[in-house]
Amino acid sequence: MLYKHLQGIVLGVLLSFPALAQDTWKEVAPGIWKTVIGTPDAYNLLTAADVSPKLEGLTKMPAVVFPLDPSEIVAEVTENQTQLRFPLNREEEIFGFGLNFKTVHQRGRILRLHVDHYGDSDNGRTHAPVPFYISSEGYGVFVNSARYIDVYAGTGSRKDSPNPPEARDRNTDNAWTARPYSDAVEMRIPAQGVEVYLFAGPTPLDAVRRYNLFTGGGPLPPRWGLGFTQRLHRLYTDEQVHEEVQEFAQRGFPLDFVGLEPGWQSKSYPNTFVWDPGRFPDPEGFMADLKQKGIRINLWVNPFVSPDSPIYKDILPLTASHTVWAGVVPDFTLLAAQQIFWKQFETEHIAKGVSGYKIDEVDGYDQWLWPDVARFPSGISAEQIRQTYGLLVQKQSAELFHARNERTYGLVRASNGGGTSFPYVIYNDYYEHRDFITALINSGYAGVLWTPEARASKTAEEWLRRMQTVVFSPMAMINAWASGTKPWSYPEVEEEVKSMALLRMQMMPYWYSEFAKYHFDGTPPFRGMNLEEGFRSSDQKMTLSDKEADLEANPYAEATRREVKDQYMAGEYLLVAPMFAGETSRRVVLPAGKWYDFYTGDFAGEGQVITVTPGLDKIPVFVKDGGIIPMADPMLHAPEKGEKYDLEIRHYGHKPSEYMLYDDDGVSYDYEKGDFSWRKLTVSVKPDGAISGEVSKAEKGKPDNLGNISWKFMTTQ
Amino acid sequence: MLYKHLQGIVLGVLLSFPALAQDTWKEVAPGIWKTVIGTPDAYNLLTAADVSPKLEGLTKMPAVVFPLDPSEIVAEVTENQTQLRFPLNREEEIFGFGLNFKTVHQRGRILRLHVDHYGDSDNGRTHAPVPFYISSEGYGVFVNSARYIDVYAGTGSRKDSPNPPEARDRNTDNAWTARPYSDAVEMRIPAQGVEVYLFAGPTPLDAVRRYNLFTGGGPLPPRWGLGFTQRLHRLYTDEQVHEEVQEFAQRGFPLDFVGLEPGWQSKSYPNTFVWDPGRFPDPEGFMADLKQKGIRINLWVNPFVSPDSPIYKDILPLTASHTVWAGVVPDFTLLAAQQIFWKQFETEHIAKGVSGYKIDEVDGYDQWLWPDVARFPSGISAEQIRQTYGLLVQKQSAELFHARNERTYGLVRASNGGGTSFPYVIYNDYYEHRDFITALINSGYAGVLWTPEARASKTAEEWLRRMQTVVFSPMAMINAWASGTKPWSYPEVEEEVKSMALLRMQMMPYWYSEFAKYHFDGTPPFRGMNLEEGFRSSDQKMTLSDKEADLEANPYAEATRREVKDQYMAGEYLLVAPMFAGETSRRVVLPAGKWYDFYTGDFAGEGQVITVTPGLDKIPVFVKDGGIIPMADPMLHAPEKGEKYDLEIRHYGHKPSEYMLYDDDGVSYDYEKGDFSWRKLTVSVKPDGAISGEVSKAEKGKPDNLGNISWKFMTTQ
Repeated sequence: MLYKHLQGIVLGVLLSFPALAQDTWKEVAPGIWKTVIGTPDAYNLLTAADVSPKLEGLTKMPAVVFPLDPSEIVAEVTENQTQLRFPLNREEEIFGFGLNFKTVHQRGRILRLHVDHYGDSDNGRTHAPVPFYISSEGYGVFVNSARYIDVYAGTGSRKDSPNPPEARDRNTDNAWTARPYSDAVEMRIPAQGVEVYLFAGPTPLDAVRRYNLFTGGGPLPPRWGLGFTQRLHRLYTDEQVHEEVQEFAQRGFPLDFVGLEPGWQSKSYPNTFVWDPGRFPDPEGFMADLKQKGIRINLWVNPFVSPDSPIYKDILPLTASHTVWAGVVPDFTLLAAQQIFWKQFETEHIAKGVSGYKIDEVDGYDQWLWPDVARFPSGISAEQIRQTYGLLVQKQSAELFHARNERTYGLVRASNGGGTSFPYVIYNDYYEHRDFITALINSGYAGVLWTPEARASKTAEEWLRRMQTVVFSPMAMINAWASGTKPWSYPEVEEEVKSMALLRMQMMPYWYSEFAKYHFDGTPPFRGMNLEEGFRSSDQKMTLSDKEADLEANPYAEATRREVKDQYMAGEYLLVAPMFAGETSRRVVLPAGKWYDFYTGDFAGEGQVITVTPGLDKIPVFVKDGGIIPMADPMLHAPEKGEKYDLEIRHYGHKPSEYMLYDDDGVSYDYEKGDFSWRKLTVSVKPDGAISGEVSKAEKGKPDNLGNISWKFMTTQ
Repeated sequence: MLYKHLQGIVLGVLLSFPALAQDTWKEVAPGIWKTVIGTPDAYNLLTAADVSPKLEGLTKMPAVVFPLDPSEIVAEVTENQTQLRFPLNREEEIFGFGLNFKTVHQRGRILRLHVDHYGDSDNGRTHAPVPFYISSEGYGVFVNSARYIDVYAGTGSRKDSPNPPEARDRNTDNAWTARPYSDAVEMRIPAQGVEVYLFAGPTPLDAVRRYNLFTGGGPLPPRWGLGFTQRLHRLYTDEQVHEEVQEFAQRGFPLDFVGLEPGWQSKSYPNTFVWDPGRFPDPEGFMADLKQKGIRINLWVNPFVSPDSPIYKDILPLTASHTVWAGVVPDFTLLAAQQIFWKQFETEHIAKGVSGYKIDEVDGYDQWLWPDVARFPSGISAEQIRQTYGLLVQKQSAELFHARNERTYGLVRASNGGGTSFPYVIYNDYYEHRDFITALINSGYAGVLWTPEARASKTAEEWLRRMQTVVFSPMAMINAWASGTKPWSYPEVEEEVKSMALLRMQMMPYWYSEFAKYHFDGTPPFRGMNLEEGFRSSDQKMTLSDKEADLEANPYAEATRREVKDQYMAGEYLLVAPMFAGETSRRVVLPAGKWYDFYTGDFAGEGQVITVTPGLDKIPVFVKDGGIIPMADPMLHAPEKGEKYDLEIRHYGHKPSEYMLYDDDGVSYDYEKGDFSWRKLTVSVKPDGAISGEVSKAEKGKPDNLGNISWKFMTTQ
């Protein structure tokens, strides 16, 4: 028998923490507790991101107590792994675990969190597999490890569970299920220990805010970063760039920055990081001319260094054992490698006028990147470098701009926990329009930004529908260099596309204020419905039994129990329900409270599921009762430092309300020294129903770019 | 900067074996070398399989030397993982890494070897992810670890490589590739060390033979195991079983054993392992009646124990922390658990007449099985138990039959390295006919058996095509209990299906001898073309440059360079090229040497690609020049112990040749005591071309079941 072979086996003795007593949890910031299990890796997500919590924001949040029963949180360290368990109750929903594209509800899923290009399945391999989840009960859990983490998000059933599933006979019992009830989230980390953070609410959105503030708060982009951007053909010359920019102006399409693809370099894949003398003989002059026209330049790069790069010889000893496309892979955890690599960017690009980067291929695929057997000179494992490479390039490139007191806003293909504050938006090669919206929702749970870029379309209708969602996203990007599609490529919808593009520019004061709230308060500007007060059935004063009893009579209960992944919140007051090619109508789930049509101000509904038929030119957008949306005039470029703009303030519904309008110089980091202003926009309603609005005075010595201010009360009856 | 956070980090110090000197390799059996790296887990694939090498077979093989340059084999142990590297040369092809379904060539692939249900992608998750690969250069590598192994099969490129890829400029160089050249197979094992075995050739097939013999040699099924089997509806009663068996006999369809699905038990999923008193009031009498009719019984089970099972209370303390469908999971590495669990099988099933099992759900899915955070009382990790559970249940159930000196032949959903000798055939829920053939090919590289079972069909044509491949496979199974399809369900092809089924029975002497060669010599009865002498272009006396030069003129070179995954070798002499629904003709790649049509004996071709149009009733089968195929009369049941049968020996082509015909009692393990016979069938050709055959006398006191013997020379001109 097998037994004789087992004599020799040392039974896996566990350093067991059968339950983490509360006193092992230390409150490290308001409403944020930390525990250390076993002996964690010295290198983790937070050391890679290297950011400071925004305590000002955290101290403003409601006082809270430890949100779970600590005796229900179990951690164990075995010889070669750490295991974690967190409780779930019957009605609890969980969200997060990074930038998923097809699912919002994560309970019942098994994931292996692994930085990679998204491969069409929510299995944990994605551009930002953030080990952070949020509970509908109003708390969040973050595992600070740069290892590949196995997550069983409510799938396992244990003998020792207080709520074990009941055994059923599959032969005859129709209630038998292949997925019995599970009452816990379990995780496996291949390390001798790990740090875990618990974020209190009270609401799920508060838990997200605490996570975002703890990891530095959201980035505050330069104003121009919220304008339109177009990426240009990889082999364009400086002349061709000027021509395309010219055509945007002539046709009256807004444009704030353009992206140069690999051909700006003398060689790419791997890269020299040197301008190609044929296509760009005078980068400095070229970028100065564009700046005159209100256009900034973003450069495509990936970090893999060509033997023909001037930095190759110096950085070679500081690179990985394995190459990528025969280029060497810098160990960005080493100061010496950082200095050699980024000096080239500082002197050859940024000093000459470059405003940002698109940092490609720091995510995957496995077939391209270094294998997990690669060795890095720092001694940090290939796995940990893979999980944090996106964080390192964001952090280190952003610092170049910060040192010059210039803001940047770029693109990156990989991020992870701790990367909240970096001024980068994630993009990829995947192109399912619906899944792009689900990714936008999940970005709000993960402390990252995501762009549903428009790249190409089969039809004019698809092009317009995609441009409509681009306008209601963190970066309004056309990435059509390969397809050659222009905003005006479909004449039958050129005007509709243009008016959407101009709407983006009109809404600049709103977008800019919402990003300021992401930065100072941690509120994600784009987020899922499940974070919205009044969305969940429980807030409809319904008990589960009511819901079960009453599906026919209460489609709302059904709708909110289903995964809602095709509509989202944009800023404080807007609900966006995108249309997709081929659709002429859609269902929209409106949370509790009154909602109004963004374009007309008409009442749309209240705590119900409506069906809308918006027509091709409109993307359905709804405003919460009392919603205040500050709008500027349509502009072709975002206002530059000190440039005044008029304000039309729109109010929706009948509720008295307030809105905090943010302002600063729009380009520098002076706001970090307090050089910014908040103005309060107040709407009051008299007993007779008379409605009026007021704008607080600009604080003395603070930035004030407001010209004429007018009010528009959208809801007239 | 990040640097300050890295001060504290201990650089990963490596126990480094920069190169394994030859003297670290010990020859543990003829042509088989072993090395021990670091401190391997005490529990591994070979301790789980617990089998002894077949030294008799190994000593008969050609003398060989260590097949690689040991200085090119590199192993390193870091804090928490072992890394391995093996060299590849430019023309080298590699095969194996377990039961893949879509690919045969593995060079260039990245896999994570993980026991699971096959999920439609060759990523390492499969029923038998055997960590064994075979090189076209004539050697094999086996990593004896029960961990999830990451494999980079010729994908990584290293700075220190003697053959690094050249950097190219993607902007302008059309020769740029996303997959630069790699000169090594690299692996990552999450353990402090590992045992590695190297198998010499000289041919790739010899390397496979050595692996198979080292892991116990192939199983020798009972003769009845090679007959036909049908699986019956999960809720059939004993009466319904008798009726279906009756209909097979009435219609003249062969049948040797039938399978009872979960409903034979009082409860299933989880299981009581107790007969349902309603459906099977008298199991013993029921099975005795069937045995009278020449029919044996196979029982479906999975190992998860119901709280209502009589063994539940005793086995409970010997089960995992987590349950599966609310059933407990025995720790089969523990003798006490083995004794409690299998005693139920011995006394309640086998002693009453059961001949074999179908052991389900020991592979996956993750959503069903215990998570990797589960704990087992032995202290062996959930990961290691997952990788070996299929081995353990095969090993331990087979021993029950061995103890009674009765052979068994069953079905299982998971196996792994070391499982070669277990009398089980792998099956699954996947159902792509073409991929079933590719799996049959890969089973020959992995030391496992696979059945391309017929389950259901959309058309009569598909049913017939699937039945044709079933006949040329290790287990001729109809698993149509769910669809209710019978062999005769499509009247328009009933006769064709029946004649194929009878052909299976006629070929019994050939199949039985070929399995004996699997057992005694390690030669897989079903295997890929790449293992066939004369298949590869190099054997066509062509250099690579010829091949490159001459694609048009030499389609054979092209064909053999492409992945050939839809034709295979069946036994010593047969090449099978299945037809798939919707096809009326297909290409067949014939290796060097003359090949003949199996049905007519006509010359078919030689070292070339032919196109055949066989008609619906025929599956294309070709015989090597000199091929000898011993055939019996068509029978409805395999011969029982001592039952004589007549032999018609077929010879193909013009070559004098020999064939070794195996015989024994067909049911017991007495052959282990030498109670078997080999008879030599010899064909001689006189100078005048006259051809004659001779059969050696039966050895004294050895089994001899031959009745009349006749010869048939199939090739007449």
